[in-house]
Amino acid sequence: MSQEEHPIQHFEKQLKNYQPGISVDCIIFGYEKGELNVLLLKWKIAETWALPGGFVRHDEPLDEAALRVLEERTGLTHIYLKQFQTFGNMERTWNYSNVNKLLMDKMLNGIPFHDRAKVTAWFKQRFISVGYLALVDIGAVTPTKDFLSERCEWKPLDRLPQLMLDHAKMIEEALSQLKLQLNALPLGKQLLPKRFTMADLQALYEAVLQKPLDRGNFQRKMLALGFLIRHEKLMTGAQNKAPYLYSFEETKYNDLLHKGIGF
Amino acid sequence: MSQEEHPIQHFEKQLKNYQPGISVDCIIFGYEKGELNVLLLKWKIAETWALPGGFVRHDEPLDEAALRVLEERTGLTHIYLKQFQTFGNMERTWNYSNVNKLLMDKMLNGIPFHDRAKVTAWFKQRFISVGYLALVDIGAVTPTKDFLSERCEWKPLDRLPQLMLDHAKMIEEALSQLKLQLNALPLGKQLLPKRFTMADLQALYEAVLQKPLDRGNFQRKMLALGFLIRHEKLMTGAQNKAPYLYSFEETKYNDLLHKGIGF
Repeated sequence: MSQEEHPIQHFEKQLKNYQPGISVDCIIFGYEKGELNVLLLKWKIAETWALPGGFVRHDEPLDEAALRVLEERTGLTHIYLKQFQTFGNMERTWNYSNVNKLLMDKMLNGIPFHDRAKVTAWFKQRFISVGYLALVDIGAVTPTKDFLSERCEWKPLDRLPQLMLDHAKMIEEALSQLKLQLNALPLGKQLLPKRFTMADLQALYEAVLQKPLDRGNFQRKMLALGFLIRHEKLMTGAQNKAPYLYSFEETKYNDLLHKGIGF
Repeated sequence: MSQEEHPIQHFEKQLKNYQPGISVDCIIFGYEKGELNVLLLKWKIAETWALPGGFVRHDEPLDEAALRVLEERTGLTHIYLKQFQTFGNMERTWNYSNVNKLLMDKMLNGIPFHDRAKVTAWFKQRFISVGYLALVDIGAVTPTKDFLSERCEWKPLDRLPQLMLDHAKMIEEALSQLKLQLNALPLGKQLLPKRFTMADLQALYEAVLQKPLDRGNFQRKMLALGFLIRHEKLMTGAQNKAPYLYSFEETKYNDLLHKGIGF
């Protein structure tokens, strides 16, 4: 894209490559110090934040589209994206809300009329959007904004800015899924250091479940599952108060992930 | 539709109402006497079986499309359909496999060329298909075939006929989901009589998990969850061998469904 080209004009040229009425949106949860965040983009051309989302090429498998969109829009690669829900209500069109109509006017402002008509028609469709989620270690990735965005930032779940379309609802649903699938997703592995304390593991579960867990119960349940190896104590304070370090026993851990921890 | 009209000609007239490249497919598991079945349609115009599926209208919420398609194609209403996965590989087009090309030729045989071209173009698209699943009591529903189908039948999971496109894969994925979500879905409620034995409940879990469960463990876990009320014994044989009858304690049961049984 040339420096002078309006982002929407650039986009207009690509339209024919994309399947109409279908989009993907990525809900990337970031974990750091016992808190969950979500990765959001602030649009250059409008006062609104949005999930990293985009369109699906005619010749592109759906899951690959999600990975490409995530990389194009945030720079993130090698993320384990998991599809969690597809959103297809009639509210999923910019025609339905005044906020979104205003946003579209603003976006389209200043581009020639014939382009505008084509792009407007595109965005006026009801997009059925396939939601993907991931849970990453904030310290291990470096999000970078794309040419459409002014900022690309982690936002804490309890202090989200105003979001486009139904993106707040998407985040809510993704979080419900994360809670439900706590047993089946490879949670601890990517988010904790190789050796961690029981308190580290509990903080992670508490961040996802968004509620405090009883320490004794948690430890008992986790140890009963038999996928933790106990190592030496973590030497920071008094010997008798130092917590044990644990790591995951690979085979048993993978086995449990596959079967689920429930039954 | 008039009696003489070819089903494909009837369909061609409807094309403009549907969103291109999007479909829904319903995986309806039927439970009866400890066995899981899946509801399939045998096409009139081709030697193949398929899931009850269809297209999404431009003005129709996605979830409503799934309910409408299920009703139109099988007569089933008031089914609790749960979205479980969206399928969007490049293999999801009739161009990709010889079987499907032959099927399309057969379907289009005998209709005027100009209609054929339009319908062919429609079916040559890659359809991103949103999968919905339900688990119903076979005895409580009466599937009826639609005008496109020759038969509409329950087929046992371990003896499935040859299926169209990736429908076998869809069934497999739906079953995985069912197993995973055994804790969160309202399983027992719709599928068991109001009062049931522990053996009835275990047979249901075994059918979904497709493996035998230890009787003592199962009973202990179920009772520990605290959502079962014990009633009088089932009087069929000797008094001392008669099994207890149970029912679900509504509040506790709903509470557990909401939270999930895992953590």
